[in-house]
Amino acid sequence: MSNFLREEEKDKVHAYGLAARDSSGILSPFHFTRRANGDNDISVKIMYCGICHTDLHYLKNDFGDTIYPIVPGHEIVGEVIKVGRSVTKFSVGDIAGVGGVVGSCGSCSECNEGFEIYCRKVSLTFSSRYHDGSINYGGYSDKLVVDEHFAVLIPKTLPLDRVAPLLCAGITVYSPMKYFKLDQPGLHLGVVGLGGLGHVAVKFAKAFNIKVTVISTSPSKKKEALERLGADAFLVSRDQQQLQDAMGTLDGIIDTVSAHHALQPLIDLLKTSGKLVLVGAPVLPLEFQALPFILGRKIIAGSAAGGSEEMQEMVDFAAKHNVTADVELMPMDYISTALERLANNDVKYRFVIDVANTINKISN
Amino acid sequence: MSNFLREEEKDKVHAYGLAARDSSGILSPFHFTRRANGDNDISVKIMYCGICHTDLHYLKNDFGDTIYPIVPGHEIVGEVIKVGRSVTKFSVGDIAGVGGVVGSCGSCSECNEGFEIYCRKVSLTFSSRYHDGSINYGGYSDKLVVDEHFAVLIPKTLPLDRVAPLLCAGITVYSPMKYFKLDQPGLHLGVVGLGGLGHVAVKFAKAFNIKVTVISTSPSKKKEALERLGADAFLVSRDQQQLQDAMGTLDGIIDTVSAHHALQPLIDLLKTSGKLVLVGAPVLPLEFQALPFILGRKIIAGSAAGGSEEMQEMVDFAAKHNVTADVELMPMDYISTALERLANNDVKYRFVIDVANTINKISN
Repeated sequence: MSNFLREEEKDKVHAYGLAARDSSGILSPFHFTRRANGDNDISVKIMYCGICHTDLHYLKNDFGDTIYPIVPGHEIVGEVIKVGRSVTKFSVGDIAGVGGVVGSCGSCSECNEGFEIYCRKVSLTFSSRYHDGSINYGGYSDKLVVDEHFAVLIPKTLPLDRVAPLLCAGITVYSPMKYFKLDQPGLHLGVVGLGGLGHVAVKFAKAFNIKVTVISTSPSKKKEALERLGADAFLVSRDQQQLQDAMGTLDGIIDTVSAHHALQPLIDLLKTSGKLVLVGAPVLPLEFQALPFILGRKIIAGSAAGGSEEMQEMVDFAAKHNVTADVELMPMDYISTALERLANNDVKYRFVIDVANTINKISN
Repeated sequence: MSNFLREEEKDKVHAYGLAARDSSGILSPFHFTRRANGDNDISVKIMYCGICHTDLHYLKNDFGDTIYPIVPGHEIVGEVIKVGRSVTKFSVGDIAGVGGVVGSCGSCSECNEGFEIYCRKVSLTFSSRYHDGSINYGGYSDKLVVDEHFAVLIPKTLPLDRVAPLLCAGITVYSPMKYFKLDQPGLHLGVVGLGGLGHVAVKFAKAFNIKVTVISTSPSKKKEALERLGADAFLVSRDQQQLQDAMGTLDGIIDTVSAHHALQPLIDLLKTSGKLVLVGAPVLPLEFQALPFILGRKIIAGSAAGGSEEMQEMVDFAAKHNVTADVELMPMDYISTALERLANNDVKYRFVIDVANTINKISN
């Protein structure tokens, strides 16, 4: 047994990255081990990792359940450097993507339906534990070991830095568009908030051949929404006249805003049987009026990322329709500044860390 | 032209019933005319009419849009006494049922899908106007003229007084169970509130072979819910321990309560992807927390009655499975007392007016 343990220990993967040790959220160099590459696992040399708002929340323990030390990052793209003997999807040299989930029970109804994110035993990419009790560490690091089930194959033709954000921001807007059937050509979709999630939602919607109206508090985003992202219309959410004129015109809305905001004006924009899907999570309770909601058979829904099969489907769709994120590529030693800027929404539209090329910039 | 008008006038149907003239809501005898029976119309001698909470609201102008004089009543069952030349569904002597809708545009997407209740030009059975500009008068009266499209054929084998409430209370719970796919055998449904709507929801759910948990503020209703209505379980909505134990167990909930109440405990009872459907309309805004809603991909939906084809489907289903309402049959001259008792929820579970047999009790 002790021999066996030593053997196991010997095979563990030595990794290196940035971790926060407490709710100060301050990142510093961190040497750690990942599990030995098992039969179903692949090892990935991380090339790019997107920075998601969730990273910020977990670094600062905003939800009260952060497991320290924490290595954030769940928009990971890298090169496969080792495959377990049972691996079928990947070969060494392939490009793999990993999002927010790295494990689940595999047998509940959610897992059976391919929506592991909703499994009660879901194992998240960071600030979570794996089945063996070990802490999961995310993508602000050089290497990752992951069950191939939770990795997607990424076509090498894609600009890989711009693909990384699809693995969280992308799937978070793609999944509800599919699940709630808001991907049908000819529909009219509203996208609330033009940030990391919103700008990808606009791109997917246009790829689905859907009419898109961007709804934002910032009139300054109009030009970019229409001209650069290809949205069909733009509504300033504080302009009562614009809202009034657009009442009852939308089949669905993807609401990406996580700051507190009023839902009623959005509900009023929906047609009969329209669907308002929340993918951002304001902390304070949200309110709505029952009567107009009932008289229009409207729906408010929540949605959190998507499943692993769906992630592959999304990446393939993105490759086919050339959907990638607009990113600001940055070195490892810029992360703290990037996190500060992200907290002020000062990014168009996603920071992506150039991990492989710049990890040598963080001193041992 | 004047001859034509006189001819039209001559053919108008003279009717008699009870109307309120102002927001006092006081009902008194009312002679009026209904339109002449057109090619697509049937004339109905009203036998029974259920009393719905909506009658109370409109009598007192609670929504601010009551058209006086108002003859309430939209759970109408009667005998067909005349059919227009283009009528195909009915013959004289048939039993017809009429619910909350008597007209719609017939060409919008909602009408095309058979959900006329959501048509923007919907013409309601009372306190509303018909296409010709005339005021619609409801079922607290002796006769009705209605387009056959908005009437359903009722099997004579059914206890007709107990069928009347199906035409509003029944369809209001049946429609969302169908539309939101909460009619699948083996599902577990919660029914909030055990009144006119709730008790029929339990019966339909059992007919669908669904497990039903009644959720009520009144522990006193437990015995009746389980033993008489056949519910499988009963939750006291103020009992935190009971709620805690039942968390994540329901596939859907039909919430019939129109008094203000907390949604969060109900949302917490839902499984992943569970659906909370509101059919009662509290006046104050309703609240919910975004994060658990998102992490469970849950849905809040509204629903208002159903369409005319669906109403026929419901009646046929009710006939097959012996689903009818539990009613207190009462004479015309008891309506004022019944409305007072209804305001205090003092009825099991629906008042139905024995119109044909007792209309002579209201003096001319």
